[in-house]
Amino acid sequence: MNKISKIAIIGLGQVGNYLYRELNLKQKDIQIKTGKKIQIIAISAKNKNKKRKFKINKKIFYKDPIKIIKEFKPDILFEVIGQSDGISKKVVETALKNKVHVITPNKALISKHGDYLGKLAEENNVNLEFEASVAGGIPILRTIKEGLSTNKISKVYGILNGTTNYILSEMRNSKDSFSNVLKKAQKLGYAEPINPKFDLNGLDAFAKVRILSSLAFNIKISNHKCLMEGIEKIELKDIEIANLLNLRIKLLGISEIIQNQLFETVHPCLVSKNSYIGNVSGVMNAVILQGKPVGESILQGEGAGPGPTSSSLLSDLYSILKGNIKKPFGISSSKRKSIKCYNVDNYSNSLYLRFEVKDKPGVLSRISNRLAKYNISVKRLIQTPDKKAKKATIVIITHKTTELNSKNCLLKFKRDKDILKYPTLIRIYN
Amino acid sequence: MNKISKIAIIGLGQVGNYLYRELNLKQKDIQIKTGKKIQIIAISAKNKNKKRKFKINKKIFYKDPIKIIKEFKPDILFEVIGQSDGISKKVVETALKNKVHVITPNKALISKHGDYLGKLAEENNVNLEFEASVAGGIPILRTIKEGLSTNKISKVYGILNGTTNYILSEMRNSKDSFSNVLKKAQKLGYAEPINPKFDLNGLDAFAKVRILSSLAFNIKISNHKCLMEGIEKIELKDIEIANLLNLRIKLLGISEIIQNQLFETVHPCLVSKNSYIGNVSGVMNAVILQGKPVGESILQGEGAGPGPTSSSLLSDLYSILKGNIKKPFGISSSKRKSIKCYNVDNYSNSLYLRFEVKDKPGVLSRISNRLAKYNISVKRLIQTPDKKAKKATIVIITHKTTELNSKNCLLKFKRDKDILKYPTLIRIYN
Repeated sequence: MNKISKIAIIGLGQVGNYLYRELNLKQKDIQIKTGKKIQIIAISAKNKNKKRKFKINKKIFYKDPIKIIKEFKPDILFEVIGQSDGISKKVVETALKNKVHVITPNKALISKHGDYLGKLAEENNVNLEFEASVAGGIPILRTIKEGLSTNKISKVYGILNGTTNYILSEMRNSKDSFSNVLKKAQKLGYAEPINPKFDLNGLDAFAKVRILSSLAFNIKISNHKCLMEGIEKIELKDIEIANLLNLRIKLLGISEIIQNQLFETVHPCLVSKNSYIGNVSGVMNAVILQGKPVGESILQGEGAGPGPTSSSLLSDLYSILKGNIKKPFGISSSKRKSIKCYNVDNYSNSLYLRFEVKDKPGVLSRISNRLAKYNISVKRLIQTPDKKAKKATIVIITHKTTELNSKNCLLKFKRDKDILKYPTLIRIYN
Repeated sequence: MNKISKIAIIGLGQVGNYLYRELNLKQKDIQIKTGKKIQIIAISAKNKNKKRKFKINKKIFYKDPIKIIKEFKPDILFEVIGQSDGISKKVVETALKNKVHVITPNKALISKHGDYLGKLAEENNVNLEFEASVAGGIPILRTIKEGLSTNKISKVYGILNGTTNYILSEMRNSKDSFSNVLKKAQKLGYAEPINPKFDLNGLDAFAKVRILSSLAFNIKISNHKCLMEGIEKIELKDIEIANLLNLRIKLLGISEIIQNQLFETVHPCLVSKNSYIGNVSGVMNAVILQGKPVGESILQGEGAGPGPTSSSLLSDLYSILKGNIKKPFGISSSKRKSIKCYNVDNYSNSLYLRFEVKDKPGVLSRISNRLAKYNISVKRLIQTPDKKAKKATIVIITHKTTELNSKNCLLKFKRDKDILKYPTLIRIYN
């Protein structure tokens, strides 16, 4: 690398714009800590003249990012566009092939093309760093790759999406509905204003789970179809009943090795009010690792927003400036193996089942008979009548049962006219 | 470094012995993750024939560690003896001077001689790594030096000693006295069997605070006299009263920059039952960092024991084997500045004061008058009479006041014959 490291930033949205300012502000700090000077030589975005929070130097603005790579030959490029394919992929690919180090917070890209791009980086002897792709400011990837590298990790799980955690926390605090709280989250900038779907349906968390798995277990990024559920079906009622049961609802991302197979999932979980994870509220993220010999490790921090994301992007920059050429996934691509997928049908949990039924004789006994038929045994049952509406809510906490079993059992209720909606199922995590 | 990295282990107590086994077990993993082979070429300890949990190879045992360094020229040396001076210092010093990388969990040594030894390592272009010296298995030093290196940290605090956290948690759970719970901790191996003093009086936590400060604020290790209090004076009564007030008692280590000056302290704190730190129980450690732009980051994990310690020692080894020559304190010695000490007299907190008094008229008014005289205003007062013994317990929660003020005020009570013991003071942390 030259004496002055030439930097390019591709993408000047909220994160890219903040990063641009941070890099300018921290020139001196960077020199003290890494011994290297930096200079932003080129920036690029869709719209040169968009209103931005921090002023950009338009003299170094170029429409075409590929041209920046090829003509200006930066040493390090930040990709902060955020697509899983398209221009994001093309920019990163081109940069790596031209021996430019790449830093990105793009979880969609890495969870989809990480293996390919990682290999490309190794072949070209440059770094591909993506600390900011998982859990914002929490340096979780570096912790797995370095701080805990010696451990045999068996499980990694946590709250990986700040939007959904905010919504669930706020529904509980304000006793307001999902849709109202979502609107509030959008106003506050905690949820995407136009299309919040990928946060709500679990896809964002799932991309992070896949990146975490690949690092924690030294495997290729999986593309198995797994269990993914979001929080869209959680009603205020569920949150209130959970509260009575001393439980809280959290959207967890979970990755673990079960019988030498990989199991990855994202779904809402009921956790104890007194558990650590039950108390991580608002936009906070938390990751819990189980490893040997270290035992259980927890990392918690702000999961999103330009500040925390920038912190991780800059930690990647520091690492590169210090001259550490590193394998993107900790170990060489050729040593990362593929791993079989654990059959989701066998995944088993205690369940919370909520039935909304007509309040008439025989309904409860039909429900319990059907559960018994599928060997699902009841641990606890709470029936709350709504006399006026001639309805009742029946909540059943079951003992452990498999996904296959509960799915088959619940399907049977579809044809029952006394059951007013498809039962709500939330898995209990412990 | 040669193709096979030669390792020496000096000290074969609980940690050294466990490390010895781990290194032997993980040869293959080390090769996969670092591309380097290792070989333990020499071990040393006071007693060759002591009964150890894991068998050692006596053929590579040598009485004299200095001879090991000079004659066998290891590439990497583990110092796991644990003294602040003496043989520990001599071994590390000699190793560094002979261009041997050193890895140590020795917080006493680093907090006392870290600046000197760090400089020595830099001059000899070798690594001095001490991840395991703070918070056991939690990779907190690496997180500060790398993962959060770009942040301006303003405060770092947490539960840094597992022994005291276990004792405080267990007193609360079992409603048993300090001395009984201490005995139990000793039986379980959570407290030193012969001399547990350095855990109980805060010294162990203080050494860790000093190491944390130096890394978080890029300063030389301080040697200011600061406020250090242990948990020896905490009675079950305080724990029970705290519980009624929705508080818990925790021994916190705190380091922060106040008005551009360094403030380091270790003392028992009353924290909210519902706070994160209030729920870190047993032998767990937790470190909380406040930084910009990252916000608040939390790391939690097992703070002691050979497993977690070994995890950190091995992470240091991996880092060295990967060929990263690093400044021991993140930045060059010459760039680490000394910093003035914030005057502890000005440190201010709300206070919990417990008075044991004779139950007779006038005592309470004398107490409140004296507090008023020192401008200490009362937020809450609870008087519990013990009619039989003609005594009463008066607990006062004050508004914020300085150390100087409270010290001067409390001294006045020494001469009051109706006050049966020197008042118990616990600072309220928020």
